[in-house]
Amino acid sequence: MITITDPRIEEYLLGLAPEEEPALLQMEHRAKELAFPIVDRLVGRLLYLLTRIRQPRLVVELGSGFGYSAWWFARAISITGKVVMTDHSPTNIAYARKMFQESGLIDRLEFRVGDALEIGREYRDIDLLFIDLDKHQYREAAEAMIPRLAPHALVIADNALWHGRVAEREDDPETRGIREFNTFMAGRKDFFTTILPLRDGVMVSYRLS
Amino acid sequence: MITITDPRIEEYLLGLAPEEEPALLQMEHRAKELAFPIVDRLVGRLLYLLTRIRQPRLVVELGSGFGYSAWWFARAISITGKVVMTDHSPTNIAYARKMFQESGLIDRLEFRVGDALEIGREYRDIDLLFIDLDKHQYREAAEAMIPRLAPHALVIADNALWHGRVAEREDDPETRGIREFNTFMAGRKDFFTTILPLRDGVMVSYRLS
Repeated sequence: MITITDPRIEEYLLGLAPEEEPALLQMEHRAKELAFPIVDRLVGRLLYLLTRIRQPRLVVELGSGFGYSAWWFARAISITGKVVMTDHSPTNIAYARKMFQESGLIDRLEFRVGDALEIGREYRDIDLLFIDLDKHQYREAAEAMIPRLAPHALVIADNALWHGRVAEREDDPETRGIREFNTFMAGRKDFFTTILPLRDGVMVSYRLS
Repeated sequence: MITITDPRIEEYLLGLAPEEEPALLQMEHRAKELAFPIVDRLVGRLLYLLTRIRQPRLVVELGSGFGYSAWWFARAISITGKVVMTDHSPTNIAYARKMFQESGLIDRLEFRVGDALEIGREYRDIDLLFIDLDKHQYREAAEAMIPRLAPHALVIADNALWHGRVAEREDDPETRGIREFNTFMAGRKDFFTTILPLRDGVMVSYRLS
């Protein structure tokens, strides 16, 4: 296991970020309390930044948890944009619905309970695909969803460095899954792919046409 | 001094990147030979990615060295886009001109020898501003150039973590310069600003209107 961002750097970066809305703080608190994995605030800010620059109309999340990443996407898209959340847990989705209701963003969301990949296949012309489901499914998800992307789509995947294990000799199914996914995306000539060493690694891949 | 990206992660990421053109390899070789500071290949790839997504017409670099970052911008913009290089060294600019001539990108470049900030002030409607000049000048550069930015411009600054010193108790003029610049940009409500812990830290700031 490799520390990807030095904690002193992380602290400095968090200190620069502005105060956040109560909804977000509440979600961060819930994640901590339940030891529920979320992308952290610095990754959230990266998602926001990329979304503002790309201006997607349709964002599809494969694996949404209780809505932490969706919150960053929803804040960043225009009022006519849509974020599709998928999660197998009705509790997670119900919580997300409540949070988005309270923060006035609910019209930008679609809430779907079930198998992320199965639901994802229903969509077309996706401008931004966010991958955060089971790690051994990443490559399958990419292969299934690439034909469903809009021109110049962004694919963003969380956990692309998997605690640094992809760079070590680890060979468990998750590490193997992420490594295969990284190699698969990096090898595609129709995408420009890079991984940012933030938190657990964020892959950002841009469809070149 | 803090190691911002673990060398094992860096090696893994470089291993995923595709083979590069001879022009780029030659520039990397020159940087190594002369111990000349350049953004490295992973930062170059980030610049390329952001440029592809944002599609700027006008890129202005404050502090271009011999053209390594300009090369990533020039490859990423459309054939009608323009990258303005600025450097005080005629040798650097002459070398850049030769490299861009050889790689067929020269029509996308403007080569300017002189004081980066003085030259920068001549431009308007800048879609992407790249800041990489003397570290104590960063904040002055931002203040002078912000009125010259186009709507939804990107400001990208290299060395935003200054070997991690910004997060430590160091108080030399460079560290202080970078720290002041970071606080200044992070505090502006008209920009969304984040710093990516890649190599020496890359600030990416997006003008919200």
